[in-house]
Amino acid sequence: MKRLLVANRGEIAVRIVRAARDLGISTVAVHSTADAQAPHVRLADAAVEIGPPPAGKSYLLADAILDAARETDADAVHPGYGFLSERASFAAAVADAGLAFVGPAAAVIEQMGDKVRARQVAAAAGVPTVPGTPGGVADVDAAVTAAAEIGYPIMLKAAAGGGGRGIRVVTDEAGLRSAFPAASKEAASAFGDGAMYLERFLRRARHVEVQVLGDGRDVVHLFERECSLQRRRQKVVEEAVAPGIDDGVRQAMTAAAVRLAREVGYASAGTAEFLVDDETGEFFFIEMNTRIQVEHPTTELITGIDIVAEQLRIAAGEPLRFAQDAIVARGSAIEFRVCAEDPEKDFMPSPGKIERLALPAGPWVRVDTWLEPGGTVPPFYDSLLAKVVVWGEDRETAIRRGRRALGEFAVDGVPTTAALGAEILAQDWFAAADFHTGALEHWLAERKEAAT
Amino acid sequence: MKRLLVANRGEIAVRIVRAARDLGISTVAVHSTADAQAPHVRLADAAVEIGPPPAGKSYLLADAILDAARETDADAVHPGYGFLSERASFAAAVADAGLAFVGPAAAVIEQMGDKVRARQVAAAAGVPTVPGTPGGVADVDAAVTAAAEIGYPIMLKAAAGGGGRGIRVVTDEAGLRSAFPAASKEAASAFGDGAMYLERFLRRARHVEVQVLGDGRDVVHLFERECSLQRRRQKVVEEAVAPGIDDGVRQAMTAAAVRLAREVGYASAGTAEFLVDDETGEFFFIEMNTRIQVEHPTTELITGIDIVAEQLRIAAGEPLRFAQDAIVARGSAIEFRVCAEDPEKDFMPSPGKIERLALPAGPWVRVDTWLEPGGTVPPFYDSLLAKVVVWGEDRETAIRRGRRALGEFAVDGVPTTAALGAEILAQDWFAAADFHTGALEHWLAERKEAAT
Repeated sequence: MKRLLVANRGEIAVRIVRAARDLGISTVAVHSTADAQAPHVRLADAAVEIGPPPAGKSYLLADAILDAARETDADAVHPGYGFLSERASFAAAVADAGLAFVGPAAAVIEQMGDKVRARQVAAAAGVPTVPGTPGGVADVDAAVTAAAEIGYPIMLKAAAGGGGRGIRVVTDEAGLRSAFPAASKEAASAFGDGAMYLERFLRRARHVEVQVLGDGRDVVHLFERECSLQRRRQKVVEEAVAPGIDDGVRQAMTAAAVRLAREVGYASAGTAEFLVDDETGEFFFIEMNTRIQVEHPTTELITGIDIVAEQLRIAAGEPLRFAQDAIVARGSAIEFRVCAEDPEKDFMPSPGKIERLALPAGPWVRVDTWLEPGGTVPPFYDSLLAKVVVWGEDRETAIRRGRRALGEFAVDGVPTTAALGAEILAQDWFAAADFHTGALEHWLAERKEAAT
Repeated sequence: MKRLLVANRGEIAVRIVRAARDLGISTVAVHSTADAQAPHVRLADAAVEIGPPPAGKSYLLADAILDAARETDADAVHPGYGFLSERASFAAAVADAGLAFVGPAAAVIEQMGDKVRARQVAAAAGVPTVPGTPGGVADVDAAVTAAAEIGYPIMLKAAAGGGGRGIRVVTDEAGLRSAFPAASKEAASAFGDGAMYLERFLRRARHVEVQVLGDGRDVVHLFERECSLQRRRQKVVEEAVAPGIDDGVRQAMTAAAVRLAREVGYASAGTAEFLVDDETGEFFFIEMNTRIQVEHPTTELITGIDIVAEQLRIAAGEPLRFAQDAIVARGSAIEFRVCAEDPEKDFMPSPGKIERLALPAGPWVRVDTWLEPGGTVPPFYDSLLAKVVVWGEDRETAIRRGRRALGEFAVDGVPTTAALGAEILAQDWFAAADFHTGALEHWLAERKEAAT
């Protein structure tokens, strides 16, 4: 691999450029007209403008990106996360153009991206899944029949979807009948397929995910991450390893993730997401993300493994460089996503110009960001400004360091969630790891109540 | 320890404030009028102005600093490096005021700060020293007699000095007779004592130092650092662990450092500096620094131990938290000191206003700095702007990452040595670790020649 095109923007594009440069691979950025001055453009060795915002007219245009790769003699494409990263058709087009796609094979993306087929893979690998429909359900009566078997509460998801969009929880048949049509319509418009997938909703579950690396021959895991603290199904705080689960669960879950990835001959970095029932310790596979995750730095900080660099090596055909027993987790890492949103105004997006900027720094503080003084937060893209990631010899140290680091985060011109992050890390329930997937929204609701 | 006064400025003051905050200790900054807007002032919980520049009228005023501590109810003082950090009288005054001094006891600072007494300690601990005079030599004839016994080339050092000032190398009697008077006069004016210490000058030696931590009862080492690349006896590039020395030497040298620190009941972080003869592998103790070193982050990155936090814990009376066999070195770390100097103009100091600033970041890149956009580099203090420290799973990875990180370093308004750092890291001799204490100056001279 000599020249890598980075088909993304924002912090992950910067991250990928850095990993490539660390390996001596030159880089090509693509960008919209709104991102002409963005750091990923400046840091890359070359840059190609591919269209105006929004993403549909630039970052989502597979052809424009492949043209840019040809123009610049790139021999590989890293899709980052979001955008085209989990579109099997894009992976296939990259491969058809004779370039290396940094991610698993198109067929694997397709298989794992389809929740129904992914559950079949899990069953074949002996990995438990949440009780649910074997496939997509197209109409409301079929959904009601299935729900009666699975048992309420039920979670309704687009069979072809991802990223939390279109998900609804219903607690009884009336709720299901009322929610289904709109959810199905939304799925049809977002993903071109209105089929819905039904599964049991666990009332008090943790979201824990296992990072794997495969080279098509073997698979290793890089331990797990705890990602229960979510708002509107978007992760807000993540950490590695997961507190509050015991070692037996950890071992069984990481082994399950490895079996799952082996089952499909997985080649790249991937993440198997699980729900862990807080009461029983049972875990259930929910989905596999076939791309780099936003929260991958937490795993990097505890293992010392550069996951993006490993993706590049694997895409270049190199075998895995680590045996499982050489991968050791050390200490505790926590990531907080700082977004351009105003938490005191219901998380209203807050694009604007960065007037002054002071980023946290110092020992064991890593900030993955595209922010710079004088930069502009455009209104067209997701609101993630920076990931503040800290490491500590133990979780308590990491929490204290995270509070300190988030306290140092200062942006004038654009309201952010940084102070909220420091506040979350200061909560007793956070220190005790006494949380589940509904905990953050519950606390935010209480906090709002208390403020009024 | 509840409230720590940081008796320093620049990057180390910022570093100490962060370590204290990570431990839940509040902080007091002191500052000169020139530093009123400095980041260490802004980051601390309180700040006291102690006088105008230069340092002699502020950062070196022990009484003003103790007054500031009393005013702000501080119960401990961290001296950082330079300034008052190795003045035994300051450590004693802090202790007499009923405050914890973050460093070893005044008597130990005094003992190790005196090269002659330090050599006696080394002899008692069975630690080899460079052949030299047993004590300070006051006149030139005595020096000539001593030199004849030791053998030329001879290095001439102020017996009471430190930091490379007043050091001269002479190759024969004529050179000694000519150099001695000026050197002695310089020593008298800088340190109040004109006595000179003579020792054998090793033609091709590496400077390797061992980091130790002691609590007054026990001592552990945190492996060694390679610091041979120096300009005018100031370190420029440092790394941990040291490449190019074999494991037997490493073990013997770290054991020697531990014996040395035990000999004096050492309590704090300290560094035993050695010269390693590149041909024979023999090592010789040269001096002990009884304070935090500029290059401590390299050790932190390979061990995961926060050395400043450990200093604070030890000063608060806590015992060591690590047994020797629990301290593990992982990977390779390299630090480059970015200074406000123009390497294309004989390293002319370059104070000025920071117009634009882009600091390196991303995985395993740590930048300890006091720089910020709009800030000013005052002409009064040392020229260190930032330490760019990188970690890699191996030395090759760390070197590549260091080159990338230094390439990202961009300051408008003030010439810096960052690009020179990237150039040094790109040299074949650096990759091969084929260097000694004279190597950098030799290369710089060749480089200058080639440019003219």
